[in-house]
Amino acid sequence: MSVPAITPKTPHVVIVGGGFGGLYAAKSLGNQPVKVTLIDKRNFHLFQPLLYQIATGSLSPGDIASPLRSVLRHYKNIEVLMDEVTDILPDTKQLVLKNEAHPLDYDILIMAPGSVTHYFGHQTWAEHSQGLKTVEEALDMRRQIFSNFELAEKETDPQKQAALLTFVIIGGGPTGVELAGALAELSRFSLPQDFRRVDCEQAKIILVEMGLRILAAYPEELSQKATDTLKELGVTIRTGTSVTEIQDQVVTLSHNNHSEEIHAGTILWAAGVKASGLGQVLAERLGCELDRGGRVMVGPDLSLASHPEIFVIGDLANFSHTPDQKPLPGVAPVAMQEGRYVARLILDKTLRRQASPPFKYHNKGNLAVIGIKEAVADLNNLHLNGFIAWLIWAFVHICYLIEFDNKLMVMFQWAWTMLTRRHGARLITGKGAYD
Amino acid sequence: MSVPAITPKTPHVVIVGGGFGGLYAAKSLGNQPVKVTLIDKRNFHLFQPLLYQIATGSLSPGDIASPLRSVLRHYKNIEVLMDEVTDILPDTKQLVLKNEAHPLDYDILIMAPGSVTHYFGHQTWAEHSQGLKTVEEALDMRRQIFSNFELAEKETDPQKQAALLTFVIIGGGPTGVELAGALAELSRFSLPQDFRRVDCEQAKIILVEMGLRILAAYPEELSQKATDTLKELGVTIRTGTSVTEIQDQVVTLSHNNHSEEIHAGTILWAAGVKASGLGQVLAERLGCELDRGGRVMVGPDLSLASHPEIFVIGDLANFSHTPDQKPLPGVAPVAMQEGRYVARLILDKTLRRQASPPFKYHNKGNLAVIGIKEAVADLNNLHLNGFIAWLIWAFVHICYLIEFDNKLMVMFQWAWTMLTRRHGARLITGKGAYD
Repeated sequence: MSVPAITPKTPHVVIVGGGFGGLYAAKSLGNQPVKVTLIDKRNFHLFQPLLYQIATGSLSPGDIASPLRSVLRHYKNIEVLMDEVTDILPDTKQLVLKNEAHPLDYDILIMAPGSVTHYFGHQTWAEHSQGLKTVEEALDMRRQIFSNFELAEKETDPQKQAALLTFVIIGGGPTGVELAGALAELSRFSLPQDFRRVDCEQAKIILVEMGLRILAAYPEELSQKATDTLKELGVTIRTGTSVTEIQDQVVTLSHNNHSEEIHAGTILWAAGVKASGLGQVLAERLGCELDRGGRVMVGPDLSLASHPEIFVIGDLANFSHTPDQKPLPGVAPVAMQEGRYVARLILDKTLRRQASPPFKYHNKGNLAVIGIKEAVADLNNLHLNGFIAWLIWAFVHICYLIEFDNKLMVMFQWAWTMLTRRHGARLITGKGAYD
Repeated sequence: MSVPAITPKTPHVVIVGGGFGGLYAAKSLGNQPVKVTLIDKRNFHLFQPLLYQIATGSLSPGDIASPLRSVLRHYKNIEVLMDEVTDILPDTKQLVLKNEAHPLDYDILIMAPGSVTHYFGHQTWAEHSQGLKTVEEALDMRRQIFSNFELAEKETDPQKQAALLTFVIIGGGPTGVELAGALAELSRFSLPQDFRRVDCEQAKIILVEMGLRILAAYPEELSQKATDTLKELGVTIRTGTSVTEIQDQVVTLSHNNHSEEIHAGTILWAAGVKASGLGQVLAERLGCELDRGGRVMVGPDLSLASHPEIFVIGDLANFSHTPDQKPLPGVAPVAMQEGRYVARLILDKTLRRQASPPFKYHNKGNLAVIGIKEAVADLNNLHLNGFIAWLIWAFVHICYLIEFDNKLMVMFQWAWTMLTRRHGARLITGKGAYD
């Protein structure tokens, strides 16, 4: 492939964020006659849908993270910058970076900074429960889970031991369901042989969901299947139940105005995320509108009405130009399609002087995994569950991983975990593990 | 295999440390008529000879670490305890543990706590250089190495950029040589395609050795081969050179009374380890003799003269009952053989009432790797170098890894890295990476 020469008039596209949205935008602009700079705080793209497998000791961070430079190395028109955007100067078309003395000029800006764990104003809850949006959060979660099994092994007080073996997962969306399933597999099948005093099968896994059913975004039939599968694995599901307080190893639940305290060594937070704080910066600098989750309201082509040269995609975008007027969910396929769409629009507009049709999301379906060999798949008209859904889930995820970085390893690792039910990556590292 | 019943008279063997020595002792006592407790601060065994591959982004911690419980799960007479020994009470035959209210009784004690990075009294050097003995140290080293390439990419001052691309490795033993080779491969072959502004091939890798040659424990011929290979890879080797000061990103070298300051973004410490602090505890409680490196002088059967029920093995032991009266080196094969020997001695003595011959180390050879396809092998009468030595090195390490934990993944990962020269695990995580 010949690389077009970059001239002084070549438009400079700056992409903020190397997640699914930013990376797909970058790849679609690769070796095209534009100059691209991709900025990310981290030096790697993280395959977030598999973060729960790090937290539960099946995969290592290196298995699901790819160096951004490495993924983009064949696109000579793309530069990767490891830095953090602190401000936007729309009048001069510039970004202020944390570690650069001079602001960075852009002609076109694609904002794709993603989202972070959110506690809906209960900031103290963050100290006592563990979110799952970054590698570090996943490693913290892994340390907590496996440390509590170790502590339980040594605990002689039955009540304290029971608390150490109680895992409360808050939030019955895909992340909560996946964590609950993986924890059940772990305590029922992987760990019992390894411990001598404690009976890991006695571990209590409680999945708390405020709504009336888990996996609310899925058809009711699949919610029911997921519920049945989790129950078979020994997970307690508490729907219609809200969390009113989280303190050190104690979570207070409320169901039908009845309050209950649960002592749990591990409290996992899978109940919510909010858009990156850069949404706030955009709102202040450009006066654009935010929704309640901090997402930027975007136009039909994902640009800002006041600034057509600025696009917002992925978890930071509220795209409601849908048939049911509901915003698209913050999932990887939406971000990928938005990234690819914006890249094509930019090429059409700046190079071919063509207009683009508005963005349209093609929903190919939703997949959630429950344990090692079970999943639910909502493929529009086709609803699947069980092992066949798991196979589809594994196939889709491997395809994406391979497309990125030839992560064949992950496939072998999965085959291995399936065959042996062994979680080889369950290291307790970092804070408190060696002091 | 039938497991012998454990009766009240069954001797209780307590092993402190799950490194090569402790783990091989435990495995050799597995399913034998003794009760075994293995205590380690960490929940995993670490394959330390490959730590440098974590530091240079080729492998993930999970690839070279195995949960101790998992490795020992089929030996029902072995219990694993994650805890730290803080004191020894030899009169009552008890160990004091950090997280247990009551001390732990033992009949026979095997001390195998290993060693830690040592700065020979220059404790401030620890702040400005990076050791490599734990997973955390390896991840810190990985963050430093790859962060400095990122910073160099953004640096516009040529002098500062050159300093960021300068890597000083202190210590020309196997660890220093392996780090130098891996850094050279990284900067010459893996990274150049990934960066746009900085020329990674300009990275300066300086290996500093106080003695007259690197790999001093190897035959002179192989030291020379290693020197030649490293020089071809672009490594600068400074023998007969000592370090007189290490400050923030500045290391002061002294050669023939000539002093020189080198500005280096990365200063790696591979110059020394010392025995675990538990040697000091043993000396205070039992009056046993320590050598200059803090190692315990042991008898011909690795026990303590004053306490025949206490054995010391691995990096904590100074075993000098060798033909040349020199202590055995602190390497994995010595620890493994010592662990196995002590286990057999215990079984002979307590069960069969047999005496054992003194310990004898069978040196099968030494291997050090230099870059991806080069190594030196000292197989007693056979001295090999180049690719054939690398193949032997890879084969031996894979055999040990598979023996432990069926880490077939590592083999695939290596094949992959060799084919593609891609370091996929080069994530910058933890401290400073996301604040």
